Parts: sequence; structure tokens; C-alpha cells
Amino acid sequence: MDERLARMCLAAVVEPGKPATVEAVGALGAADVWAGLLRREGPVAARARRLKPDELLARTKAAQLRFVVPGDIDWPPALADLAGCEQVNDLSGEPLGLWVRGSGDLAALSFSAVAVVGSRASTAYGDTVAADLGAELSEAGRSVVSGGAYGIDAAAHRGCLAGRTPTVCVLAGGLDRPYPPGHRPLFDRIAEHGLLVSELAPGEHPTRVRFLARNRLIAALAPGTVLVEAAARSGARNTVTWANVLGRVVMAVPGPVTSATSVTPHRLVREAEAVLVRSSADVLELLSPLGRASPRMPRERRPTDDLVGDDLRLYESVPGRGSLPAGELALRAGITVPRCLALLDQLAERGFVAQNLLGEWHLPPRGVQRVRGDGSSSATR
Amino acid sequence: MDERLARMCLAAVVEPGKPATVEAVGALGAADVWAGLLRREGPVAARARRLKPDELLARTKAAQLRFVVPGDIDWPPALADLAGCEQVNDLSGEPLGLWVRGSGDLAALSFSAVAVVGSRASTAYGDTVAADLGAELSEAGRSVVSGGAYGIDAAAHRGCLAGRTPTVCVLAGGLDRPYPPGHRPLFDRIAEHGLLVSELAPGEHPTRVRFLARNRLIAALAPGTVLVEAAARSGARNTVTWANVLGRVVMAVPGPVTSATSVTPHRLVREAEAVLVRSSADVLELLSPLGRASPRMPRERRPTDDLVGDDLRLYESVPGRGSLPAGELALRAGITVPRCLALLDQLAERGFVAQNLLGEWHLPPRGVQRVRGDGSSSATR
Repeated sequence: MDERLARMCLAAVVEPGKPATVEAVGALGAADVWAGLLRREGPVAARARRLKPDELLARTKAAQLRFVVPGDIDWPPALADLAGCEQVNDLSGEPLGLWVRGSGDLAALSFSAVAVVGSRASTAYGDTVAADLGAELSEAGRSVVSGGAYGIDAAAHRGCLAGRTPTVCVLAGGLDRPYPPGHRPLFDRIAEHGLLVSELAPGEHPTRVRFLARNRLIAALAPGTVLVEAAARSGARNTVTWANVLGRVVMAVPGPVTSATSVTPHRLVREAEAVLVRSSADVLELLSPLGRASPRMPRERRPTDDLVGDDLRLYESVPGRGSLPAGELALRAGITVPRCLALLDQLAERGFVAQNLLGEWHLPPRGVQRVRGDGSSSATR
Repeated sequence: MDERLARMCLAAVVEPGKPATVEAVGALGAADVWAGLLRREGPVAARARRLKPDELLARTKAAQLRFVVPGDIDWPPALADLAGCEQVNDLSGEPLGLWVRGSGDLAALSFSAVAVVGSRASTAYGDTVAADLGAELSEAGRSVVSGGAYGIDAAAHRGCLAGRTPTVCVLAGGLDRPYPPGHRPLFDRIAEHGLLVSELAPGEHPTRVRFLARNRLIAALAPGTVLVEAAARSGARNTVTWANVLGRVVMAVPGPVTSATSVTPHRLVREAEAVLVRSSADVLELLSPLGRASPRMPRERRPTDDLVGDDLRLYESVPGRGSLPAGELALRAGITVPRCLALLDQLAERGFVAQNLLGEWHLPPRGVQRVRGDGSSSATR
């Protein structure tokens, strides 16, 4: 049997988030693992023997889906971070493959993505913030990844649909039976320009554990996750846990302290598990740009007399050409993100750095002039 | 001339926040400094020669004020932190003395105080949060210190007036000409049970620099400062700077990201200059109690098999009897407050610590039972 079809068959009978099968496939190949499974005992093997590969292929085709696997040009490299990472709710592991509907390129969209998640029982405030975030991130060339649920998820998807970058919706059941059913029109619109994605075969319905496994994909697909609203107990909290386990940038939007749906964002910020973000500008400031500026060191123009320690390291991290977000600069300078934000503000007040409309940091024009050998700098203070 | 009267005369002619006079008084005594000033040239000396000490005394008495100086039983020891601390806006220094109106004990109230400050142009949300904070802190035995301005200050004072602990209002002008004049009824109510305090002599009016000098007193008088609402440019930001310079616990209340008056609280939290607080419980968790529990180490019952590193140090910081707030535990364990909050939650989930209604942390009852020699512990799981 063909490896892709064998992976598809395995994905159709094995529950998501159980890495044993993925590891076996890595060692033996999917065709051998599938053949071995057919000879075994137990409910999964029984399910495998009942599966008709031709029918699965036909069903995938009928629902206008394709099945992408690791190694495909549009397989997101970020999903490999799920291999061998810490377990959450006994789940882990890269997917065997993904059913995908829509015209977008999952790898490209994942690279630029921001996950925006939150409560189904959101407030008007949360919906507005999520929709604004979605629209502004989309305009800034960022794809919004979310789970297609009512509330914050839907607001973020809709905001992104209004912008110029497609949105990615990861579902916990088969893509031919979208859940919640009331979002069928939304999912159709998402599929037009963006992507519907699922680890589950057509015909499968979502379960509690499948929602939890789905959350790991949302967190893994994006370099950063923003929690907009979530009550004390919320499924969105699980996505944040995955984002932290995967080393993603975790962000949270504050709200009124009187709002029950801001309890989890406030708690995450208070306990330094998330960075407070107020707007898309704050989010963009923390995430790397699509095309990274070259990290050339501006040696000649370094005002070393004034800058020492973290200030100096941070200033030296700002590229000579182009701009970088604060999150990247913090990484380069080896300092925490909140400290980086504070120091950048101080450096900006002293005229050493400046911020562009995207929130990224660069050297100010007069700093560039200062090092030119033609004496033109003296004209600008 | 009597030292107290000499200090009063000096305080009446020297601008607040200029430590040179205070230092000279410390070295030579106030009477000598006053006598020397009368022989000098310049505007301050001219002002000193115009001053009639008897009239100043009479005016102080007529306004029902008293003048307290360092060394008095009700002089707050916390104000000594202003001696030799970093300057803000070229201001620093312990006051020469304070004019005080009201029946409260400034030293006692300062010891238990929380400064609650914020924008004059507050929103209904901010006013509600400040009033609730004031009332709940007052009920918990905490005095609210603020500046008597419109908006957040007034809401915090009024909240505190509704509780059982008196409030302290620090003004930037003479206490016989309260500012803003519209708050005269509020100030009268404050003076009934609490205190009006000023570094300025009766008859003096507030100026910009006197407001800035006043802010240093608000920050110094309380072990912690809460910023409720403040726009990008706000006088309340200055009080927060003082609180940070003085090593006080700085806290900020989040709000809707769409609210201009939450810009500064959000920025402070984002840049780790303030800890996010949602309620009086969060504030109390960060501040030391009035009567500190004895720091007895619970040696015998230490489950060292399970706890290592910060977890262990934090667990060991929880007293054997009584309870402590998280801020104090962070200090004792030598870890940051956000990390302390996160670890306490984890320790609580594992049953090592518990939280009481005031938000303070203690050992759980069954932990106490476990070490009794009579075997009664086996009865509780």
C-alpha cells in the first residue's frame, strides 16, 4: 500500500494525540504499520479491518478535501515541535496527516500565523477585541488560526476574513460534518480563501479528547497565541497550556476586572504566563516578521559612551537595515520580553531607536546620517 | 528657638522635596539652621525674615492643625526611606515636618496603608473599582492613602470612609485652603476619623512642583501603591515612579483595552513595572499583614521528597503558625512575585499550602495533624 494512503487509513482509525503510532510509522513506514495493525487484536485493529480504503478516498474526494502528510510542500514545519514535546492531558505527537479543505497553503499561512482563541461565552467587548485583532493582523499579513467555535473564535475568523490574509480553522471532527453546524456558512467562507483543517477523517464527530487534541494543533501552527477572553474554567486555557509547552509566545488581552470572562487572561498575566497585549500592534511587536531583516551590527554608530549592559546589548540587537519586533530583539539580547519592552521605550525616549507603524523597532534616520562620512549629520541636531 | 518651631518655620519658607535643608537640620539642628537662614541673602532668606513665628503658630492652631516632626510618636518611620533615595523630578528627601488635621495616628495608619491613586478624569468603571478597593481594604484593616483629587482619589477615599479603617489624604497646599475647593465636605469627613496631611504651611496654595513633591509622600507612606486608572500622560504615573524608587509594591488594575484611562496600568503590567491586581484580595495577598506571624520553620513536616528548588524554598517560607501574604513569601523565598503566585497555586493544588479568606497563605490543617506524635493524622486521608 502507498505510504500516503496508509497514513490516511491509520489516521482514520487511531485517535489523535497518541504518538505511539506516529513513532512506529517513523521507524517502519506507514504501509508496514498498517499491515501489522490488520493482523493484531483489539478495538483499533477491528476498526482497521472494517475500514475500506477506497471508500475513505472517495469520501475525502467527495467532501473536496485533500490529505497532507509530513514532507509535503504545504506541511507546516512547526508541527514537528509536537514530536517529543511534553504531554498535556496525556496527549502529544505530530499528526499522521491532516485533512484540508480550501485553497490556502497551510505551511505559508502557519509561518505567519497568530492563534486567537477564547471563550465560547464571550462578551460584546471580547468579540469586538477579537474581531479587531483578526482584521488588523490579517491586514498586517498575518493569518489568524482558531477553532471555529462560537464566541471569540468566530469573531477572530470573521475579522481575519475582512482583511487581506486568509484564516485557518482547525476543527475537532471530520470536515464534511462541520461543528458547530450553525457555522457551516462561516466555514464555507473560510474555505474560499483560507483553510479548514482536521486531524479527523470525514464522517468523524468531535469528542472531548478530540477537542483537546485539536487545541494542540492550534497552538503548534502559530508562533504566538493570544487569549482574548476565558472564564476561570475554559477550554481556551488548554490551548494556552499547549502554547507554553511548545515555547510559543503567549499573550493575553486584559478586560474589566468585573468581567468573569477576563479572569483567566488576568491570572495568566499576573502569574507571568502571558504577556499583556492591548492591540494588534502589541502582538506584532512580539512576533517575528515574515521576512527577517538581516542582523547586521551597526558597529560604527554605536554610542557606547552612553549605553552599558542590557541597554547596549539590546541596542546592538537592532539591525542596521530594516526592523525587528521586540520579541525577536529580546531573544537576541538575551533578556526577558517585559524588560525588553521597558528598555526599548527608554532607548526610544533617548533617540537611540524608533518604532514603525507595524510596531517593529529600527534605528532612527538621524542615527544613520550620523555615521555618514559626508558631514551631513551636523545639519540634524 | 525651640526645635519644633524652628522646623515649622523652615517648612513654611523652604519648598518641599529639597533635601539640602533637611540634611543641614540633621547636622546642626533646626534652630541653628533657622538662625543662619535669617542672616543669609536670597529669596528664601527674605521670606524667612518676613515670617512671624507667632502668627504661623496661631494660624496652625486656628485651622485645628498640629505639626508633627521626625521623632514624634506618630511620625511614620516609612518616611525615612525618602532620605537619600533616588531623585524624581529633582525632588527627594524626608519632610521637615507635616501639618496634620484629624484624630488618626499617622504612624499607625501608614503602617497598614495602601495608596490607591489614579486619574482625575476617571471612568465609571474606574470609580467603581477604586471605591470597592477602598471599602474592602478598609474593612480588612487597611488605611487608604490618596491625594484627595477628583476621580479615582475621591472614589478611593469615599470607599475607605465606608469601611472600618480611617483614610489618609495628602494635600499639596495648606490644609486651611483645601484643594480642590469642591472637596471641602469630603475633607471634613476625612478629618473626623482619619487624617489630612500636608508638607505645606497654612495659607500656601498648591503648585505643579508641590503636587509632584506630594506624590512622593503618598508613595512613601504606604507599603504598596495601586494604580486604578491613568491615561498615557497622568500625574498618577509620577506616584507609581516614586513607589518603584522607594521599593514599594506597585500594583495596577487592568481595564478594557478600548479605554484610554487603562493605557498606563496596562503599560506598567506589560513592562513588569507593576503586578496586575483584580481585587482587594489580590492586593492583600501582596502586602504584609499588620501583625506578622512568627516565621517558624515547619521542619518535621517538610515533604522534601517531593519539593526541590524554588518550590521547596517557597514552602519553607510559609510559617508554621498563622499566615502570610504572597508578597512577603516571595521576599522570604527570594523569588519574583509573579513566580511566587504561580508556584503557590501549584503547591495549593498539590495540597502543600492553602489560602485563607484574606488571601494569605498558610499550611493546610491536615499538614499540621500529620506531624503530631499521637497518630491522629492517619484518620485524615
